[in-house]
Amino acid sequence: MQPSTPIHPLDRATTLTRTDDGAFTGQTDPAYANMVGPFGGVTAAAMLNAILLHPDRLGEPVAFTVNFAAPVADGPYRIVADPVRTNRSTQHWTVTLRQDDGVKATATAVFALRRETWSATESRMPEVPPAQDVPPSRLADTQRAWFDQYETRFIKGTVLNTAVPASERDSVTTLWVRDEPPRPLDIVALTALCDSFAPRVMVRRAEWVPIGTVSVTMYFHADPADLAAQGSRPLLGTARASRFGRGYHDQVAELWSDSGTLLATSHQVVYFKA
Amino acid sequence: MQPSTPIHPLDRATTLTRTDDGAFTGQTDPAYANMVGPFGGVTAAAMLNAILLHPDRLGEPVAFTVNFAAPVADGPYRIVADPVRTNRSTQHWTVTLRQDDGVKATATAVFALRRETWSATESRMPEVPPAQDVPPSRLADTQRAWFDQYETRFIKGTVLNTAVPASERDSVTTLWVRDEPPRPLDIVALTALCDSFAPRVMVRRAEWVPIGTVSVTMYFHADPADLAAQGSRPLLGTARASRFGRGYHDQVAELWSDSGTLLATSHQVVYFKA
Repeated sequence: MQPSTPIHPLDRATTLTRTDDGAFTGQTDPAYANMVGPFGGVTAAAMLNAILLHPDRLGEPVAFTVNFAAPVADGPYRIVADPVRTNRSTQHWTVTLRQDDGVKATATAVFALRRETWSATESRMPEVPPAQDVPPSRLADTQRAWFDQYETRFIKGTVLNTAVPASERDSVTTLWVRDEPPRPLDIVALTALCDSFAPRVMVRRAEWVPIGTVSVTMYFHADPADLAAQGSRPLLGTARASRFGRGYHDQVAELWSDSGTLLATSHQVVYFKA
Repeated sequence: MQPSTPIHPLDRATTLTRTDDGAFTGQTDPAYANMVGPFGGVTAAAMLNAILLHPDRLGEPVAFTVNFAAPVADGPYRIVADPVRTNRSTQHWTVTLRQDDGVKATATAVFALRRETWSATESRMPEVPPAQDVPPSRLADTQRAWFDQYETRFIKGTVLNTAVPASERDSVTTLWVRDEPPRPLDIVALTALCDSFAPRVMVRRAEWVPIGTVSVTMYFHADPADLAAQGSRPLLGTARASRFGRGYHDQVAELWSDSGTLLATSHQVVYFKA
């Protein structure tokens, strides 16, 4: 116990207190402030944490979907996590995050007791230089404090990169990314990282575009040993869009350990105005 | 009105009746019977239909996630669809399907009023021969009646195909698929089709493996004109897994119109025992 070690901003931002009626209360944190309300990845991480902290929880997360219904206002929020079905080795959850003026986010999760089986990885990790050979880039933005909570080292696909002509631009980003300050990886941090990619429309169009993630789904492939082995070193992330149109685009993303283990796949759909 | 036209099995299987308290009741249909309970794609389609039929519905589906909590028993079920948040142009839903012995499936959906914007498709449609040049294959199975409700024309990646040596096998399937009997495409049929791919583990391992989809997420890219233009002709589907391990694998899938429009992307996580 080192009482002098400051709490990591991610732990502070996802701290929950259990209430007498079995719900949880939390509080947005200025470190993860976005344009309007907090960075969605941290909201998702807090909602997952409500399940992790729930006394009835069985096993570990396999699938987690969060729908962002309305902006979370700076201040307190309340999360209700309900184990709607518990089977022998799986458990199904619904989760709701509310503030005084109504529902701000909903989520569902599948948790499971997982055991060893046949295994194989078909996705290929992008061939990239090691993190230490890629300079960190800073996208400082006073309106988006949360940018400062991640160290990013872009290999391909920065936002606003007009150096690549429009005809040759795609939406693919590949980067090394970790919490800043460094923090040992766990499932809460991995959840937030799954949502940390810049919006694909800004990569493809190389311009600021009003956006908002409306739904994100994460599938967790990592086992606890994979997470522990990764420590606080950068993960490799890669993301692309399949289709943009009629105000929305999707994103398909993968997060890899630096030793080549696929830790999570993540999918989302993003509102945009362009 | 042609009173002599029989109702399509998919319409019969997704028919819902609104109850006095605002819920919906439906009934499993033998045409879509699976090993245990009905084919999950039809359960998902019925849950989406509850939103489509709800008097408070705004717009069309953008994102839809279904978690299969327990096997649906043959017989009646009850669906409650709740519009938890309605904004100016988006609406967030939670949906629960119950039978007498509890919750069988949960879902969340984002609906929206969509409007024309800049658009682009980055995924590439697989290069394939036209449907009429690919012979239909039948995977008749008396325990899985729902196989008969789809016409499948495999270009690559049939299940149980031991003709390809294990060292060269991957989990990719590419096929032409449509409702059988033919039925004009709509969002209900597209929802079921998103879940119609065989489990990737059976393609990769070329053997029967006990499986069950636990969670599926669909992103709808098609506009109503795209759906109408497709009519009842086969769609091109392609699916792959990213990683298999510890009892679960994911699936990343795309469904294309025969004229090359990406209609939907679909993701799921599947329990397996191998």
